[in-house]
Amino acid sequence: MKRVVIVGAGFGGLRAARRLAGGDFDVTLLDRQNYHLFQPLLYQVATASLEQESIAYPVRAIARRWGNVRFQMAEVTGVDLANKRVLAEGGSIPYDLLVVAAGAQTAFFGVESARQHARELKGLPDAVALRSHVLAAFEHAALEDDPQKRASLLTFVVVGGGPTGVEYAGALAELIDGPLARDFSPELVDMARIVLVDMLPHVLDAYPPNLRDYTARRLEALGVELMLGAQVADVLSDRVTLSDGRTIPAKTVLWMAGVEPVPLAGALGVDRARDGRVHVESDLTLPGHPDVYVIGDMAYVEQDSEPLPQMAPVAMQQGAYVARHIAARAAGRAVEPFRYRSRGTMAVIGRGAAVARVFGLRLTGLLAWLMWLVLHLSYLIDFRNRLLVLINWAYDYLFFERKVRLITAPDTTRDGEWSVDDTSPAREASPERVAAF
Amino acid sequence: MKRVVIVGAGFGGLRAARRLAGGDFDVTLLDRQNYHLFQPLLYQVATASLEQESIAYPVRAIARRWGNVRFQMAEVTGVDLANKRVLAEGGSIPYDLLVVAAGAQTAFFGVESARQHARELKGLPDAVALRSHVLAAFEHAALEDDPQKRASLLTFVVVGGGPTGVEYAGALAELIDGPLARDFSPELVDMARIVLVDMLPHVLDAYPPNLRDYTARRLEALGVELMLGAQVADVLSDRVTLSDGRTIPAKTVLWMAGVEPVPLAGALGVDRARDGRVHVESDLTLPGHPDVYVIGDMAYVEQDSEPLPQMAPVAMQQGAYVARHIAARAAGRAVEPFRYRSRGTMAVIGRGAAVARVFGLRLTGLLAWLMWLVLHLSYLIDFRNRLLVLINWAYDYLFFERKVRLITAPDTTRDGEWSVDDTSPAREASPERVAAF
Repeated sequence: MKRVVIVGAGFGGLRAARRLAGGDFDVTLLDRQNYHLFQPLLYQVATASLEQESIAYPVRAIARRWGNVRFQMAEVTGVDLANKRVLAEGGSIPYDLLVVAAGAQTAFFGVESARQHARELKGLPDAVALRSHVLAAFEHAALEDDPQKRASLLTFVVVGGGPTGVEYAGALAELIDGPLARDFSPELVDMARIVLVDMLPHVLDAYPPNLRDYTARRLEALGVELMLGAQVADVLSDRVTLSDGRTIPAKTVLWMAGVEPVPLAGALGVDRARDGRVHVESDLTLPGHPDVYVIGDMAYVEQDSEPLPQMAPVAMQQGAYVARHIAARAAGRAVEPFRYRSRGTMAVIGRGAAVARVFGLRLTGLLAWLMWLVLHLSYLIDFRNRLLVLINWAYDYLFFERKVRLITAPDTTRDGEWSVDDTSPAREASPERVAAF
Repeated sequence: MKRVVIVGAGFGGLRAARRLAGGDFDVTLLDRQNYHLFQPLLYQVATASLEQESIAYPVRAIARRWGNVRFQMAEVTGVDLANKRVLAEGGSIPYDLLVVAAGAQTAFFGVESARQHARELKGLPDAVALRSHVLAAFEHAALEDDPQKRASLLTFVVVGGGPTGVEYAGALAELIDGPLARDFSPELVDMARIVLVDMLPHVLDAYPPNLRDYTARRLEALGVELMLGAQVADVLSDRVTLSDGRTIPAKTVLWMAGVEPVPLAGALGVDRARDGRVHVESDLTLPGHPDVYVIGDMAYVEQDSEPLPQMAPVAMQQGAYVARHIAARAAGRAVEPFRYRSRGTMAVIGRGAAVARVFGLRLTGLLAWLMWLVLHLSYLIDFRNRLLVLINWAYDYLFFERKVRLITAPDTTRDGEWSVDDTSPAREASPERVAAF
């Protein structure tokens, strides 16, 4: 029985494994985590809307229904293409056919200070740490006397105006305007700023103009400041500088400007595109290595002279294609080249608003949002998760409340001093602070 | 308006604040965390039954309903009794009346190696780390060739046969026999051992003999090995040694042998009992400092010549008493000394079984468990939490499944190497490993 090894239990790898389930292959699915992550909702964990457990699912619980698929938790470090072995920390695994679907990580595009001081949102720990960081920033701002320090604690800079940046900025604005506005004094909450920076002239630059404009208007209505056509030069621990010299004092900078393939792409030692993705043939195999497929965010595929975007639907269709291709090869059948069929794209901009391109339509507002809701719920792997997510969302929606706003990660905002003293002029001068804490 | 400062938003402090709400006091509630933790269910987070968010509740969301109570997140380091100020990291807060309710931490009783190598279960991060650690131990055991290393990865030693140790051991046994038995090979799961060690001759030593015996039988039926009358001498990274020379190879040692007051108790610089608790007057004030109350796990109070136990119900009744005492003093009324009214105690031993002493009755089995269920659900602060907890429990109960079994904390079990090779004798010799991963 042929040994198929799949590296990565994300959207691409998991779909490939699922489609190979029950077949005549001995499938090993590897991931460095023991769970599959529903990344599109990560920003909701980061803004205290969802528990982390609602968007993650243990791989073993999925894979054990698939008799011929076993899961192994392993950190893959490379592939020995000549000897057909996957190299992992502490050991190696032989394969006959290999599917590499290890995904992408945050790209800092050479801004080293951003790598050091900006936060990212790629994994569950990032989301929990970001949630804790934002909430702790408010707690400390309520005790801060120095107006400059308070301003930088209460300024949240989102770098990147793509769907992820837009969705996070919208959800953060609603976290602040809703639950936090009831937890903290109005004066404090009014000082909070969300600044969305992008070097491109529009948010959601890849979308049609009317959807872009709608998104920009919605974000501004939510109080998000748009700084477009602006490039980040440096991220320091308490401020961001732009290449035109402007400075934004901010203790929280979220870097959502782009992704690059994980280091495994480089460790393959094969030809890569300028953005770091691996060049593959039209059947998604590595040139010269017909037994190795590379799919998802790691693979560079052009279609109609345009590179395919790094998105979950692409990865899923590629996973399904690879499984079909493997089965066809074993049966001696030919398979047509991979072709991505877009079913549309959408981005949500806070409660009850979204933009969507689906079935050739361009939708905005509540209808787009409802479509987003149904789609995301139906994607969530498991009935219980779906139910829990729905309860959380319904609760938030009805009560403008987010019960998940717990500071559970180590505190990364504190560095100052505060004082509470009925005789100090600071307290006399700022009555709002009395209400704040 | 008199300034009342309450240190600690646990069961005692929160109850005091709640009872002072709406009164003629200016109340400041301090805690180093922004949430109130329902500690009695911590072991369920540690065994993947509940999300951490289900047993924690943001203090601001509770306190904002109480007009005269404000919350402040602060790490309290001491009290300046002479100048009536609470000292905290970065600042200080003046008080007229002070309620110290900062709780307890794990006591290692001088076993320094346990402090270093054993795990504890006092806060949410402990529970998430323990859950991740246990699950990762199984993942790595599945890849481990060395029988000794595998045995130590699969042995879980619980030190302490009190309610916490019993509840955790029972829940862990059910996690292993249920969900993990379906995730991993039967051979691997059969190697798993849970060893409960206590220096006393019985589990639940403070309970009546028939409840103790029932508990011991139930634990043994769940596969928990009881090592009673045994004292832990040393905890190393991969084994436990007892003072009689016996050794248990184990990578996981959970220390639940007892608690001691947090360091703030010592920082007060006042008279303390042998167990570190602070001696208080019959009205729970500090001797010589009638404006300072100490309650909960920090306070040493004797009643009928017995010290009161460090339990949530004691802390809650003391919190309510202190609020009444403060109001009575302000009104010039006298208040009787504090007296704890026990409404019973209970401990749960896995699915559908518990022991309880309530209303003078001694109950075991399903009836005690149902009582436990109703009580704990009704204690959980908020309707939504109650509903989520109930859904989780119902799901676990009906499907023998735990969807929370995610490894989300850094891996603390891995140190060996593993190999997967169809030509290696290790793989040939242990066919169960093929099924295991």
